[in-house]
Amino acid sequence: MQNFSFHNPTRILFGQGQLANLAAEIPAGARILITYGGGSVVKTGTLDEVKTALKDFTLLEFSGIEPNPTYETLMQAVELARRERIDFLLAVGGGSVIDGTKFIAAAIPFEGDPWRILSEHAAVVSAIPFGAVLTLPATGSEMNNFAVITRREGNDKLAFASPLIFPRFSVLDPTRTYTLPPRQVANGVVDAFVHIVEQYLTYPADAKVQDRFAEGLLLTLIEEGPKALQTPQDYAVRANLMWTATLALNGLIGAGVPQDWATHMLGHELTALHGLDHAQTLAVVLPAMLQVRRTQKRAKLLQYAERVWGVRDGDEDMRIDAAIQRTREFFEALQVPTRLSDYGIGTEAIPALVAQLERHGMVALGEHQNVDLVESRQVFELAA
Amino acid sequence: MQNFSFHNPTRILFGQGQLANLAAEIPAGARILITYGGGSVVKTGTLDEVKTALKDFTLLEFSGIEPNPTYETLMQAVELARRERIDFLLAVGGGSVIDGTKFIAAAIPFEGDPWRILSEHAAVVSAIPFGAVLTLPATGSEMNNFAVITRREGNDKLAFASPLIFPRFSVLDPTRTYTLPPRQVANGVVDAFVHIVEQYLTYPADAKVQDRFAEGLLLTLIEEGPKALQTPQDYAVRANLMWTATLALNGLIGAGVPQDWATHMLGHELTALHGLDHAQTLAVVLPAMLQVRRTQKRAKLLQYAERVWGVRDGDEDMRIDAAIQRTREFFEALQVPTRLSDYGIGTEAIPALVAQLERHGMVALGEHQNVDLVESRQVFELAA
Repeated sequence: MQNFSFHNPTRILFGQGQLANLAAEIPAGARILITYGGGSVVKTGTLDEVKTALKDFTLLEFSGIEPNPTYETLMQAVELARRERIDFLLAVGGGSVIDGTKFIAAAIPFEGDPWRILSEHAAVVSAIPFGAVLTLPATGSEMNNFAVITRREGNDKLAFASPLIFPRFSVLDPTRTYTLPPRQVANGVVDAFVHIVEQYLTYPADAKVQDRFAEGLLLTLIEEGPKALQTPQDYAVRANLMWTATLALNGLIGAGVPQDWATHMLGHELTALHGLDHAQTLAVVLPAMLQVRRTQKRAKLLQYAERVWGVRDGDEDMRIDAAIQRTREFFEALQVPTRLSDYGIGTEAIPALVAQLERHGMVALGEHQNVDLVESRQVFELAA
Repeated sequence: MQNFSFHNPTRILFGQGQLANLAAEIPAGARILITYGGGSVVKTGTLDEVKTALKDFTLLEFSGIEPNPTYETLMQAVELARRERIDFLLAVGGGSVIDGTKFIAAAIPFEGDPWRILSEHAAVVSAIPFGAVLTLPATGSEMNNFAVITRREGNDKLAFASPLIFPRFSVLDPTRTYTLPPRQVANGVVDAFVHIVEQYLTYPADAKVQDRFAEGLLLTLIEEGPKALQTPQDYAVRANLMWTATLALNGLIGAGVPQDWATHMLGHELTALHGLDHAQTLAVVLPAMLQVRRTQKRAKLLQYAERVWGVRDGDEDMRIDAAIQRTREFFEALQVPTRLSDYGIGTEAIPALVAQLERHGMVALGEHQNVDLVESRQVFELAA
């Protein structure tokens, strides 16, 4: 096991009806900016319920945070929050709204151009406290301290992290996910799945607990993901998916083990240049990445084949092939296609994707820091 | 899944050499009381290393915290800390030292008789901040917010909990456990094992992640426990055991599921009246408890048999018998006997044990709150 530091102070309020406990989590007298995306939290009534729960506070609203939250939009919220002396933020939505709110929280007190937080990893020395009401289980943003932000100008999709951007609390009510469109449910399952894989499918590190926790989360997604599409209002299914997605990326399974994240980095460029959903990019890149990196990941691929997919027959290469194929079939069964061509992207698009990776310094990715541009090109080509 | 609130703000510094990062975790200028037990931390040099790491702080020491920490001893530390205006505590040792330090932390600012924290569950409204350097993986006290304290007068062993008694940080360096006596290593494995069982072996609650995490921890103990006795200086083994014991009782696997703790309650009386090690009491009580409660625990016992022990043959009752027998054999293989008679305790001792349970109000235990004194007596008799 590698040395690690683990700290996660976010309080989770899990279960149906937990919105009733919202007010107690926010300092009395706070001036709150409620942030959200499109109109779904309005339509479902969640926004109204939040406002009712917080009727004793000063409330302002900022809507319009996009599925891949943009710097341009978020800076409007920053200006509003500064002008209105906001001292608490409440994100109501999915990972994009929470990621965006993390950036707003860090940018409000930032001196100078807040883009530097992303472009230069400028230190975040303070941030406005915030909480979240999660409506879409997927990214794990509700219980971690990083965020991914897009700048329209330049097609940049960049990440930042800080101990100051853990949510103070997150409300996870599985019933809030009943009305999600199937595409978002499926995306969430794929997103969580790949988060786990990026922290698990590397090389053995004598970390038995982390491995078994990762495998337990993957097995749960495999069992519950299809059910969530078939029976959308099954509370137990939604609860298991919601808690799994949170634990997939809250620092726990990644503590003390090597991590990869190459699939995410390639996927980000697909979203930036072609507008694919984040999960769609992961479904496209992961099977190809596992194929290209099968030698470096050999031992863990065999473990994955056996413990996650129950593949025990055939020689080692056959078992690895089977595990990669089962992964692809799982995504496809969730109606998330796994080929670039499924999204109308031809091989002619690959040079520009590789050029974007180079421009963003993504030239030494993966758990061994040796996925270079040549290998990334191979991955895109294999995903064609 | 049941509704839950989960919050665990303890920072974990895990791995060899992490003691070097100790000073950065404590507020500058703190007046620190270092608390420890017998002389083992002196003999191993850990105490000296701690003092070297904290040379820029004002340091006082309090030693002599017992394996089952007593109110009488701890109150001496409280008096010392009050007199010396201590504002930070550092526990160096195992779960008993950390449990004792939690009580000291809560008792220092307590108005009135601090015994009321235990006897009446008087509210803890403030506590002195503290950290821990763990030398014995077992209780999970290094990352949770409860403690068990014994009062010599009256043979009372009572627990308390408060959000204010999470350690600020805990240093977990597996190499510090190399020199532990085998009995303490084995006790630690049994203790962690039973902590997990108390949160897992109840009844199904549609909590797939919690179940799989619990099973992953149990499997790790089963694999690594015996190795820790055979090859005491295997870093990977000690690291896996240490992290497993912490995760066994940090609130995570118990969030959203029913819990039992009847085995612990019966065990506490065995320690209080007969002085058995805590883990010895659990090894005695658990197999008998599972036998007595096999009807109520049937579904989870079958899951436990299959997923933890790989028992798939025979009818349901045979599989349950096998799982209980394998559990007993696991404890025995660690040299922790599982019968009262192994400790020289005859059936004539049982009435006094049951009377103690009654005196402590332990008359409706277990996940269904229906393990009454009659059933507790059956458990003791079956454990004879």
